[in-house]
Amino acid sequence: SINAERLLGRLHALGQIGRDGDGRLVRLAGSDADKAGRDVVVAWIRAAGLDVAIDRIGNIFGIWRTADIADEAPVLLGSHIDTVINAGIYDGCYGVLSGLEVIETLKASGYAPARAIAVAAFTNEEGVRYAPDMMGSLVHVGGLPVEEALTTVGTDGTVLGIELERIGYAGAKKPGFLKPHAYIELHIEQGPVLEREGIPIGAVENLQGISWQRITVDGDANHAGTTPMSMRRDAGHAAARVITFLRDRAQASNAPTVATVGCMSFEPNAINVIPSRATFTVDLRDPDEGRLRAEEVALAAYLKDLAAAEEVTISVERLARFEPVTFDSSIVELVEEAARRRGLTSKRMTSGAGHDAQMIARIAPSAMIFVPSFGGISHNPREHTTDIDLVAGANILLDVVSHLAAQ
Amino acid sequence: SINAERLLGRLHALGQIGRDGDGRLVRLAGSDADKAGRDVVVAWIRAAGLDVAIDRIGNIFGIWRTADIADEAPVLLGSHIDTVINAGIYDGCYGVLSGLEVIETLKASGYAPARAIAVAAFTNEEGVRYAPDMMGSLVHVGGLPVEEALTTVGTDGTVLGIELERIGYAGAKKPGFLKPHAYIELHIEQGPVLEREGIPIGAVENLQGISWQRITVDGDANHAGTTPMSMRRDAGHAAARVITFLRDRAQASNAPTVATVGCMSFEPNAINVIPSRATFTVDLRDPDEGRLRAEEVALAAYLKDLAAAEEVTISVERLARFEPVTFDSSIVELVEEAARRRGLTSKRMTSGAGHDAQMIARIAPSAMIFVPSFGGISHNPREHTTDIDLVAGANILLDVVSHLAAQ
Ligand SMILES: NC(=O)NCCC(=O)O
Ligand SMILES: NC(=O)NCCC(=O)O
Repeated sequence: SINAERLLGRLHALGQIGRDGDGRLVRLAGSDADKAGRDVVVAWIRAAGLDVAIDRIGNIFGIWRTADIADEAPVLLGSHIDTVINAGIYDGCYGVLSGLEVIETLKASGYAPARAIAVAAFTNEEGVRYAPDMMGSLVHVGGLPVEEALTTVGTDGTVLGIELERIGYAGAKKPGFLKPHAYIELHIEQGPVLEREGIPIGAVENLQGISWQRITVDGDANHAGTTPMSMRRDAGHAAARVITFLRDRAQASNAPTVATVGCMSFEPNAINVIPSRATFTVDLRDPDEGRLRAEEVALAAYLKDLAAAEEVTISVERLARFEPVTFDSSIVELVEEAARRRGLTSKRMTSGAGHDAQMIARIAPSAMIFVPSFGGISHNPREHTTDIDLVAGANILLDVVSHLAAQ
Repeated sequence: SINAERLLGRLHALGQIGRDGDGRLVRLAGSDADKAGRDVVVAWIRAAGLDVAIDRIGNIFGIWRTADIADEAPVLLGSHIDTVINAGIYDGCYGVLSGLEVIETLKASGYAPARAIAVAAFTNEEGVRYAPDMMGSLVHVGGLPVEEALTTVGTDGTVLGIELERIGYAGAKKPGFLKPHAYIELHIEQGPVLEREGIPIGAVENLQGISWQRITVDGDANHAGTTPMSMRRDAGHAAARVITFLRDRAQASNAPTVATVGCMSFEPNAINVIPSRATFTVDLRDPDEGRLRAEEVALAAYLKDLAAAEEVTISVERLARFEPVTFDSSIVELVEEAARRRGLTSKRMTSGAGHDAQMIARIAPSAMIFVPSFGGISHNPREHTTDIDLVAGANILLDVVSHLAAQ
């Protein structure tokens, strides 16, 4: 079994890195806080005696090779250490640090792998500062040219490639240099299912599709006091209609579709000026590709009608689009089997969040292990998983990896 | 008649001061741009041979006293030179520069006033950076203690008093030192009425009530992908409901009530995080105090129901509240009479915008003159009034002032 104290100690230590003036955890991709987190993780990887490799998009790999491995293609573990704004400490970091923990445990145990084992910390999984999300793993699998990814402009006007240079994580390795034999990612569920059902282990068999759009509404600034309601071209009002449309539609349906408007800004953003422009994001998800496409079509139709009715112009920019993914059933079975052997119940489930596993699945058999999230809360400082569940998940990862790397 | 070239030249010159990097006119109260505008106006006032006085809230007065005036209490003209974000060049500046123009014209003509005549540029009429609006004139009439006004914190976290010190316009005079005999403010209409009806002069007989509130909705941040629609406490969605409620209500009614949400911000404002907080402003106006109060009550009731239904908490801060004002009928009649003598049609009307006249009316007989606004557009760079209308308005002001100052 893994060293619980070491894993939990590192998790809490990393969770203190990147706190802002208000004590909020904000470790956005490419930021100074990201650098500080990377530095600590790289130091731990080196201390464990692994080879460190960093690629051009800043993905960090810690690779364990032994003298007598039969096959270089590694069993890859990992996740990410970048965070959202005002994040919890588990999302992503748990998977990276458990991957490292599993390798250290296997090394110390005298285990002789038949193939390399590696842990990855992928760049910009959250997609908060730079879209799309899962960017590092997407580049790794060739889904996005690295040159294009590096020129991405962030919400704060920065350019990812320049930021990576600045923080010293624009590596030399060609993205995708490491072709995994298999990929397995341990993560907190971030949703309410496991906790509600009292099940400690999720064997994640698929992951829903993700559609991200940025929508800009242009109306006309005018005086809040003198402009009759009937003469307004109010961009802010049109944006509000989109939010209520999405909510009403999702709630009226029996489908598991979720729709979120997370970012919003008005221009000129003055109390007595009718907004001339509203810019906002729409995050649509559904496990079924056909239904996700239908939701996108319904939104587009609504925007067209809204533009006509409100005499505003509406433009749409696609920020991310990923189809649902089905994971490798034999790895999912290994997860179930490992749970059974440790006397833990498990449940096959869908991931509501996007994960690096979703990208790596394009090039290698992949799956995920989930552990319960307190109250289903994530992307929130109250994100929490009990130590017992964290340790149990890492031990399942250990069992699955030792099995996969043995052949 | 006034010197049209001088007035229009100054109006255009002042309109070039305070352009930002994108060429937008942004001369917010207390800013460097405001200082630059003030410096130019003060220089013109001095060049006209008037006494300059600046009070503690930064109101600027240019006073024409002659050796043989019978009464020190001046006929006061004026308006403001602060602007909204991305403003037009007429709002406020037209009134200040016309006031100066009228005094210069009277001085040059050999006119011997029976009382002083003064022009005022009041601080922070727009209320965009610091609420409430009409702050300088409100302080002048004793409606807000100057100490309280000076400690107002702006949308950018600055403090008005510190900004006024910084730009050199924290004057020594006690606010209200100048008690006017009468006040008359010339302004662009900022609404569509005069242009639509082809009438060059508005004789403004009243001004609608204004209610400004800042509303904060607190929900719960959570993951956009994993949180079922039914389990969300989405502050952004609740804010959107308020916007659609206000629009639907105003549009369903026959009353002239206007309702505007001009400012909006989400926290943490991340694409895949359900907003934990939404902060926005509500600007409600109605010429009838009872109806305005009823709208405020309806909004409060809606917020209460919404908070319960969406499981969010909602707090409300009052930023400004001014009752409707009726102007002095004898001055309104003087405006109509002056128009008639110059062969211009005029119309009695209500002001949809707030104005300094609304405050000064508390301590002196007051009224306003409006000129047409192209397309009813204001608080917008496309704000426009023809030169002919601008000059006609200034001549009406001249006639009314020469009448009022003669006795
Ligand atoms: N796991 C996780 O929160 N990923 C971020 C990408 C997303 O699902 O929005
Ligand atoms: N005249 C004018 O635009 N005043 C600003 C205050 C307001 O009416 O919002």
